Amino acid sequence: MQIALLVYDRFTALDAVGPYEILCRIPDAEIVFVGKEAGPVRTDTGALALTADKALDEVPHPDVLVVAGGPGQSALMEDQVLIDWLRGVDATSTWTTSVCTGSLLLAAAGLLTGRRATSHWLALGHLERYGAAPTEERVVFDGKYVTAAGVSSGIDMALALLGRIAGDDYARAVQLATEYDPQPPYDAGSPQKAPAPIVEEIRARSRFILT
Amino acid sequence: MQIALLVYDRFTALDAVGPYEILCRIPDAEIVFVGKEAGPVRTDTGALALTADKALDEVPHPDVLVVAGGPGQSALMEDQVLIDWLRGVDATSTWTTSVCTGSLLLAAAGLLTGRRATSHWLALGHLERYGAAPTEERVVFDGKYVTAAGVSSGIDMALALLGRIAGDDYARAVQLATEYDPQPPYDAGSPQKAPAPIVEEIRARSRFILT
Repeated sequence: MQIALLVYDRFTALDAVGPYEILCRIPDAEIVFVGKEAGPVRTDTGALALTADKALDEVPHPDVLVVAGGPGQSALMEDQVLIDWLRGVDATSTWTTSVCTGSLLLAAAGLLTGRRATSHWLALGHLERYGAAPTEERVVFDGKYVTAAGVSSGIDMALALLGRIAGDDYARAVQLATEYDPQPPYDAGSPQKAPAPIVEEIRARSRFILT
Repeated sequence: MQIALLVYDRFTALDAVGPYEILCRIPDAEIVFVGKEAGPVRTDTGALALTADKALDEVPHPDVLVVAGGPGQSALMEDQVLIDWLRGVDATSTWTTSVCTGSLLLAAAGLLTGRRATSHWLALGHLERYGAAPTEERVVFDGKYVTAAGVSSGIDMALALLGRIAGDDYARAVQLATEYDPQPPYDAGSPQKAPAPIVEEIRARSRFILT
């Protein structure tokens, strides 16, 4: 089983590394970070580079695709090379997945048309414009398409996906190995839970990121 | 404010990237990944390389230190160059922190002697051998020393730390921006919660990792 994680300039690190840390524990799975070109890719802060070990054309048919999100996504929505690669991968994939605004790239490739899907809470409107049916859930399964909400939600998505691939007990073992027993010190992780002024502040700032 | 994340061959990616994704959002903070030498560092699976942008001697006095864990930690417990660097950093740091078995490196440097601290649940015994007072909590503050349990717990630690540095509301805003509203599909993230056979299986496998 080959699992490809798509990264690109100005992606958000945890979008990719969250699912990686769970899915890399599938027995005999090959995990590969893929970029438009092979080489270091800088995240959205500029303070971290991950290496894309393979270029798109070196990974034409992974079994599982995970598309990370991040501000850099907006520059790729009409990138025909990437869109064609996404369509080609999806034609043979077992699972086509995304985290955060990665779902906008899947939608731009036409892969989520009419499907229930999610994204970062600030991007659900964009998702609708690209033909998907935005769904306010943390992890959304629609057939082989699995989309996760913002940034940290890729961990939950990957665990749910791992359960489907390797069984519930295997997923539980990975949850234990990664000690994923979350205890956030605040309860402000969704727009429904955060104080309204904080929601509005983040919404105002996002205008400069989501285009 | 300079925040240094220490990485090394065979570290665990999420140990570093979880805290990074939270702490990088501190206004005017400089985040820097530090390695024994500057350059790409492979994680424990071999499937991912992150770039250490700076070598140890280029980052002598960060305000915040985060030491990641991972199987590669065991090869560094008597690495005098690294131990000296940890002591030097700690002499002037505002916060000295770790995730997972990163606390064993802090303990090996003598920084946790007599202090309450935590680590991956499988490594708590090791922590005690190095003079710390192992504490079965997800995030442990003891003065300026902050240690987190296994792998994913660095996210919770970083949010708690962010609250101390930038205030509770700022931390809530970052929680919302990263949509950290965890909803694990299973409830097996600690040895108290996971089914006993799964705990035993992970414990048996760990003998080959923790030395």
